[in-house]
Amino acid sequence: MYIPALDDMKTARERVTPYIHRTPVLTSEFLNELTGAELFFKCENFQKAGAFKVRGACNAVFGLPDDMLARGVATHSSGNHALSLSYAAGRRGIPCHVVMPRTAPQAKKDAVRGYGGIITECEPSTSSREEVFAKVEAETGAEFVHPYNDPRVIAGQATCSAELIEQVENLDAVVAPIGGGGMISGTCLTLSNLAPSVKIYAAEPEMADDAARSFRAGHIIADDAPETVADGLKVPLKDLTWHFVQNHVTDILTASEQEIVDAMKLIWKRMKIVMEPSSAVPLATILKNKETFAGKRVGIIITGGNVDLDSLPWMEK
Amino acid sequence: MYIPALDDMKTARERVTPYIHRTPVLTSEFLNELTGAELFFKCENFQKAGAFKVRGACNAVFGLPDDMLARGVATHSSGNHALSLSYAAGRRGIPCHVVMPRTAPQAKKDAVRGYGGIITECEPSTSSREEVFAKVEAETGAEFVHPYNDPRVIAGQATCSAELIEQVENLDAVVAPIGGGGMISGTCLTLSNLAPSVKIYAAEPEMADDAARSFRAGHIIADDAPETVADGLKVPLKDLTWHFVQNHVTDILTASEQEIVDAMKLIWKRMKIVMEPSSAVPLATILKNKETFAGKRVGIIITGGNVDLDSLPWMEK
Repeated sequence: MYIPALDDMKTARERVTPYIHRTPVLTSEFLNELTGAELFFKCENFQKAGAFKVRGACNAVFGLPDDMLARGVATHSSGNHALSLSYAAGRRGIPCHVVMPRTAPQAKKDAVRGYGGIITECEPSTSSREEVFAKVEAETGAEFVHPYNDPRVIAGQATCSAELIEQVENLDAVVAPIGGGGMISGTCLTLSNLAPSVKIYAAEPEMADDAARSFRAGHIIADDAPETVADGLKVPLKDLTWHFVQNHVTDILTASEQEIVDAMKLIWKRMKIVMEPSSAVPLATILKNKETFAGKRVGIIITGGNVDLDSLPWMEK
Repeated sequence: MYIPALDDMKTARERVTPYIHRTPVLTSEFLNELTGAELFFKCENFQKAGAFKVRGACNAVFGLPDDMLARGVATHSSGNHALSLSYAAGRRGIPCHVVMPRTAPQAKKDAVRGYGGIITECEPSTSSREEVFAKVEAETGAEFVHPYNDPRVIAGQATCSAELIEQVENLDAVVAPIGGGGMISGTCLTLSNLAPSVKIYAAEPEMADDAARSFRAGHIIADDAPETVADGLKVPLKDLTWHFVQNHVTDILTASEQEIVDAMKLIWKRMKIVMEPSSAVPLATILKNKETFAGKRVGIIITGGNVDLDSLPWMEK
């Protein structure tokens, strides 16, 4: 297991800068008053392909040696990683193979194809996915880029908090959502080296609290397909991300489904930005743990903005 | 009729700067490719109180002489002007009286009260509104601030394009929505003086195209309560705004209800920002008149972001 280090983040940053946005940091007086903290929202919802995942994807794709280019890259994901990898591959002009359940929403398939991704459909089960993916990998020889348990991906995600600490001085804490742990690991990588006094909190849905339980148990607990509105956060930790969580995270805080939806709607309403349910989990946990953050300068990673506008969570019965 | 001039805009700018945001200008590669133009979105949806109207309201409120402060300000509006005037009055610590139909949505009443506005309800008819407003004005002695046909308000709105031309060089055109004409008049005031080569286009819903018909007829045509999803654009031109439209606008372009809703959804989806239907009319008209804007550098005023998240136009049947 190769654990990415500060130099990997620095290399990633040089590599990905031409292909990504330096996203803005927004603030809201209203939310500062509501929480009693000073909040700085790093808006990766404005990122290329709509999410921070393009950082890791670009680092993996643009770091590929020349002799691997023709075969391209591959992944199994129906979310932002698939979009981001397709975008990155498209920018480098190489193929990107994506294995997706045939039951995935048409809008997601269209979005991946819109960025040039080549979709191979599988049945909506883990066994089918693994089987179909193995076949695609064997036939194409494409390089597998895991959505988070990959040092190239973590080093790429780490560029986000490198920007954040340049944009906002003297942060006391950073809160980011945790699913598989790619963003949190990148945050740990950068902050533990460049701003070790900044506390790192992970925010997780109660309904998919495997990372919080892992954190307390001291070993990875992986749940089977938890259900949560924060659909980017269903996946479990893996060895590489667990390493960072175990060593650098101060605490993992959780929020209920209703608290997540309320926080999401509050951000849309007051900040006028479109972001995903996953991105609302940090604010939801801060509102629940005001004493922890009162008077502090707190960075919040708004991880992405790819949401189905036809089916917003507060409109479902 | 006092026609505000460049000096009034400059005075307004000094006066309002402490109380408003210098809003960012966003761009979208996707929308540039789609339209064939280079678009620069001036994001007044991120403005204080959620709309550009706070510029004019702050100019009126902070320009009031001391001996008028105790009596405060008053208006009849159920939209962004009421919110903005309440916000401005609250910042100056003076009363703001708002006459609103009792049938106005509870959320709008709550928002006005949230900024400290004092609501007096009237029946949902023009005669009741006028009668109740006259009574409030007589009883309180408050200074009436019209939502748009007021030189103080127009000079305030004019600060928006003063920022825009500092933020974006060499614009060929600016497109802004037109309802009563406050924003367009402010745009004309600034650009005709500071950047006279920039063409000014007004964008209007087909269903409320009284400004377009006025423009062609050469005199004001005021419709009775037109119906459009762009609910900020239902009001007619008045003498002061007509002056600016007649003298400085290149053309008034219109878009259908469906085109407006489609453009709104497209902006939410691709730019990840929350904005009102009214703010989508410019993009809708540009998509309809591509040849007019092809290859041009075009500023677009995103006028506001106060939208009912529980009832988005593409979700209604």
